[in-house]
Amino acid sequence: MRGVVLRDDRMVVREDVPDPVPALGQVLVDVRACGICGSDLHFVRYGRTMLELAQKLRGLPDLGAPPLDIGRDVFMGHEFSGEVLEVGPDTIGPAPGTLVTAMPVMVGLDGPRSMAYSNDLPAGYGERMLLSAPLVLEVPNGLDARRAALTEPMAVGVHAVNRARLTGNEGAVVIGSGPVGLAVIAALRLREVEPIVAADFSPARRALASTMGAHRVVDPGAEDVFDAWAAEAPGRAAVVFEAVGVGGMIDEIFRSAPLGAQVVVVGVCMGSDAVTPFYGISKELDVHFAFGYTPEEFASTLRDIAEGRMDVAPMISGEVGLDGVPEAFETLAHPDQHCKILVVPR
Amino acid sequence: MRGVVLRDDRMVVREDVPDPVPALGQVLVDVRACGICGSDLHFVRYGRTMLELAQKLRGLPDLGAPPLDIGRDVFMGHEFSGEVLEVGPDTIGPAPGTLVTAMPVMVGLDGPRSMAYSNDLPAGYGERMLLSAPLVLEVPNGLDARRAALTEPMAVGVHAVNRARLTGNEGAVVIGSGPVGLAVIAALRLREVEPIVAADFSPARRALASTMGAHRVVDPGAEDVFDAWAAEAPGRAAVVFEAVGVGGMIDEIFRSAPLGAQVVVVGVCMGSDAVTPFYGISKELDVHFAFGYTPEEFASTLRDIAEGRMDVAPMISGEVGLDGVPEAFETLAHPDQHCKILVVPR
Repeated sequence: MRGVVLRDDRMVVREDVPDPVPALGQVLVDVRACGICGSDLHFVRYGRTMLELAQKLRGLPDLGAPPLDIGRDVFMGHEFSGEVLEVGPDTIGPAPGTLVTAMPVMVGLDGPRSMAYSNDLPAGYGERMLLSAPLVLEVPNGLDARRAALTEPMAVGVHAVNRARLTGNEGAVVIGSGPVGLAVIAALRLREVEPIVAADFSPARRALASTMGAHRVVDPGAEDVFDAWAAEAPGRAAVVFEAVGVGGMIDEIFRSAPLGAQVVVVGVCMGSDAVTPFYGISKELDVHFAFGYTPEEFASTLRDIAEGRMDVAPMISGEVGLDGVPEAFETLAHPDQHCKILVVPR
Repeated sequence: MRGVVLRDDRMVVREDVPDPVPALGQVLVDVRACGICGSDLHFVRYGRTMLELAQKLRGLPDLGAPPLDIGRDVFMGHEFSGEVLEVGPDTIGPAPGTLVTAMPVMVGLDGPRSMAYSNDLPAGYGERMLLSAPLVLEVPNGLDARRAALTEPMAVGVHAVNRARLTGNEGAVVIGSGPVGLAVIAALRLREVEPIVAADFSPARRALASTMGAHRVVDPGAEDVFDAWAAEAPGRAAVVFEAVGVGGMIDEIFRSAPLGAQVVVVGVCMGSDAVTPFYGISKELDVHFAFGYTPEEFASTLRDIAEGRMDVAPMISGEVGLDGVPEAFETLAHPDQHCKILVVPR
């Protein structure tokens, strides 16, 4: 079948990806839509750094998965929806034709394995892919495949908001209004957090931030976001979301956040970043690093989208076929005019 | 009166400190004992850096206090006990002769002001000092003045432990067993946290860590503290206390702490420190910066010491008069053989 892989630091269309065949516990789907995630762009650029850092990391359980080999083709695409083609032998799964989505995890007899970056498991940037039957969720309420594909990135925002300790008195500052920041804004709105002050240098992104629920948007080139916050919500407790992932942002938040603020780091800055602990100590900041989501958050996000509580349509800014993926990756490297580009294989 | 001040980056004994006179809301005490705090050593060395960083800091309420002028004499000494000599006019306070302690804060009509570092308010490294009447606590249960002076540093440990979200299932790793680490260990023990794994390069400090309640002590030169933790409490949730305050420690904790750990930063590293956000994100760490204590924590710590639930006597490793303060500061710069040196003016 056809699929797009990362090879030699570039996205390459392949005609010869082996046809995936569902085994016990697996469901074969026809990919209907798959979002291009900022993490994938990051991975093309910083994949080696990420793998090196992951090697140094201690304290994680050893799941026995073989390490990713960046010298071989890497399958990517973890924000997908698909139509069920076939369920594996002795496996319970939805009927063929059902529109589904799932967390990008393959649960096997040897434990769970991420499908976000894999040498072996074809993922969302391809015609067909395998899902883990226990994780497959039927897309409810007639939601279309394109919007269903946004379940994953929106769940990231839901989880980031859940990582904060919200008591009902906090407002929020969202630094960065790319897809992650927008997902955070939508999740904050769902939790009825008010006010939400969002910042981005891009006018298009600021407009989207308003659409997704920010009460006030700030151009950091013209106005300081924490000044705007102080004017908007004087004396209020703040949760600050770092959704940029660029070096120096965390330190600037430490320096400028209000006394006692919570900081949720959901943007991923690669490599080393300089911070000033004195700032964090002087204001007794709480910093919550956020990654992924729980199965419950993924499922509730799908329901919230399908039942209209979270409107993701404004975030979809473009659509390409498999042949368009390499160029879309280039386009998104300068993302001012784009938010979420969907890959629609057929 | 006599007192010791910071002048030109050195501690200097002065014979001509103006005699403090209690005003409305103030209590004059004869200082009985005052601990030398690591922050004071830090301030002698990094005072200018701290003031520069404080200038850059935003988001703190403006209390209208005049900025500290490091070009003038600076009074220090914030871990004190004293005997009441006189209560200011129209002020309610304990009877003369009462042994008291207090948070090092002077509450005035113009707001609270820190007494830890001041150009104007003589503090614990002197014969007499003024306290804020509303904050004065009588030392209960016949506790002696020397141990009462340890209320302040022990309250720092109590607060650091309270900054973590303890559910009853966590064990603790304490990196650094100087006075701050030991106060954390004592506070953890009081909360019945188990196990407590403590690390320090100094054999004397490791022995003290055991005395104060650590279940296991580790020499980082011989054994990795997180390996020791994993052996001691496999799979347990961990709260890791950074009580060293040296650059690089936070990043090493991020790299090595268990999945989902809480990290409490109570050591103050001056200046900039490099961290790897990827580590924090991969393990969804929660980082709580800790500073000082609440009035309630200060009062409960005094009671816990006075009623024998927290034995601070082993931490007192030496005693000097006012004349001995400059040399004690030198000695504590190489603190392996010392823990808490008390200044006893008379």
